[in-house]
Amino acid sequence: MNQRMKHVMNWLQQENIDAAFITSTDNVFYLSGFRSDPHERLLGIAIFQEKEPFLICPAMEAHDARNAGWEYEIVGYTDIENPWDIVEKKVHGRINTVRTWAIEKEHLIVERYEQFLARYKDAAFVAAEEKLRTLRLIKDEQEKQILQEAAAYADLAIQVGISEIKEGKTELDIVAAIEYELKKKGISEMSFATTVLSGTKAASPHGNPDLTKITKGNLILFDLGVVHKGYCSDITRTVAFGDLTERQIEIYETVLKAEEAAINAVKPGMLAKDIDLTARNIITEAGYGEYFTHRLGHGLGVSVHEYPSVTNTNELVLQEGMVFTIEPGIYVPDIAGVRIEDDVYVTKDGVEVLTKYPKALQYVK
Amino acid sequence: MNQRMKHVMNWLQQENIDAAFITSTDNVFYLSGFRSDPHERLLGIAIFQEKEPFLICPAMEAHDARNAGWEYEIVGYTDIENPWDIVEKKVHGRINTVRTWAIEKEHLIVERYEQFLARYKDAAFVAAEEKLRTLRLIKDEQEKQILQEAAAYADLAIQVGISEIKEGKTELDIVAAIEYELKKKGISEMSFATTVLSGTKAASPHGNPDLTKITKGNLILFDLGVVHKGYCSDITRTVAFGDLTERQIEIYETVLKAEEAAINAVKPGMLAKDIDLTARNIITEAGYGEYFTHRLGHGLGVSVHEYPSVTNTNELVLQEGMVFTIEPGIYVPDIAGVRIEDDVYVTKDGVEVLTKYPKALQYVK
Repeated sequence: MNQRMKHVMNWLQQENIDAAFITSTDNVFYLSGFRSDPHERLLGIAIFQEKEPFLICPAMEAHDARNAGWEYEIVGYTDIENPWDIVEKKVHGRINTVRTWAIEKEHLIVERYEQFLARYKDAAFVAAEEKLRTLRLIKDEQEKQILQEAAAYADLAIQVGISEIKEGKTELDIVAAIEYELKKKGISEMSFATTVLSGTKAASPHGNPDLTKITKGNLILFDLGVVHKGYCSDITRTVAFGDLTERQIEIYETVLKAEEAAINAVKPGMLAKDIDLTARNIITEAGYGEYFTHRLGHGLGVSVHEYPSVTNTNELVLQEGMVFTIEPGIYVPDIAGVRIEDDVYVTKDGVEVLTKYPKALQYVK
Repeated sequence: MNQRMKHVMNWLQQENIDAAFITSTDNVFYLSGFRSDPHERLLGIAIFQEKEPFLICPAMEAHDARNAGWEYEIVGYTDIENPWDIVEKKVHGRINTVRTWAIEKEHLIVERYEQFLARYKDAAFVAAEEKLRTLRLIKDEQEKQILQEAAAYADLAIQVGISEIKEGKTELDIVAAIEYELKKKGISEMSFATTVLSGTKAASPHGNPDLTKITKGNLILFDLGVVHKGYCSDITRTVAFGDLTERQIEIYETVLKAEEAAINAVKPGMLAKDIDLTARNIITEAGYGEYFTHRLGHGLGVSVHEYPSVTNTNELVLQEGMVFTIEPGIYVPDIAGVRIEDDVYVTKDGVEVLTKYPKALQYVK
């Protein structure tokens, strides 16, 4: 039994849950190595306290699931079979009845839930998310290495983006150039919509890249990441195009100071909230507290947002193997929007910064 | 009351449903003009038999919702409020109780469903999807025009892709070039992951573009579409790179013949299945029936897959204003994969083809 599966099985035993049925793309990938989004078709993993788990998927994907490394039973179904009948039969072949199911309540849709309700009328349903988020919180060596590689692609993307800055170009021109270069290197998916925002657009909570031309005298904000071997990176850099005002420079330097201080504070045993507060206090003392309108960061892994959530209230104790972003920002309407973001890995006694693109204020002339 | 809202209200009256709560991005956009994906935050539209509908969204999006054209009440909530309490209060301000709710059972997650179950313990829940799919089936003049524009971008994308074909290039190089040109024209979202597949990869049900280099003597398949003003296009073209074998040419010409015959068969009053069968019979008679492994087409609009489903069993009667794809294909493992796809609009007495890129077998030397 692989370690991840063993963790879930132990949890089922401890909580007296008879079985779990996991259907979200990210959690199925985490548990099986098989990444697939079969849209309206069912893909799921059933896990039991002691019996062998099984994976159910469209028949034509069964081979891919095996190749991806799933070691246990694979149940394929065709378009003319009802996969829920098959799930019920396979479950019944393992255990007599299910009194408590663990499901992903933030993922499973009502239509599928009704399949469970019809087949397991007296069952209770508990949420599996928290357990899986906690499991995914600590990255192993292999995950760390993939995240390092993903971060290197993010660094490259920033480099490409900055090299494209030129009078007359639009935000979308630059987005296009970044994704073009990444695709040529084999990156087929970004971890979210690549963001390039010029000037005061970066100070708006709803800025989307469009045909706005970039102009001198402004800061330009890049926020992007890639999906690499199933794992996400996420980086933000803000650079100057032409000359800046003193106010713009002050905002940049404040964010940078906050970001670096937060990174330097990271080590096992710290509380997540104290990392947030390290940055937040610096920004507040500089008089920009009201303009830092979001949490400091979020966990990163199979999903681009996962645990830990680095807020000013989260009392989670940091542990070796956690990976998250540190991304303070100051957004002053009509003046400037600046954010600087790195991906960090908590080491045995400190921190390793995965994204490495330089952060000293860079001027493109 | 706008027409779309009136249709839903009439349906609630006819079916004796007290209220509907619509939460999917596409249906919210269709009913309100407001397109937003607030992720884990709640965005929804409540509709009643007679009372005024309301839209609930994060407070910072309320302004955008108004600008997008929503004419009725907008209820904004902050991150420290429970939006479900607000929904309950606003519903109660309009009607005493809800005995039957219409919800999107294929979209609503269990966590949200439990909010309803806790607040409306004795309520019944019916699915709203079928009604909304039926409403969205007939496109009005404005929708038609947007779909024409979206199709023109798809034509352009094919042209760009074909112009990039050159020895030494990879599939992802070509994907990158296509999306680069579209982004420069202001297209920020594709309707699905752009597909460029070379040679026998196009014959596999699971081909994804990668760093495979394209080589002569092969067919190259392009399948792509854009999102434009909230509406999707979807086109497939397959072209020759270098010389082809007689078998490859025969496969191409069979698909083309089937595709054109199906298009020519479209007119109001026909059954959807007869359009599918027109193409399917030609492919079957040519001896390739077993290699045409999917339905002929799918509806197209706010979603890239919507009603009507053009299968060999759907007895839906075609009507003026329906928009769907016609995309027969033949996939012979290790030999060739060919698909040709257009978007069509059912007119008063026939059909208008929205995508216009030529289909005669094109050779890139």
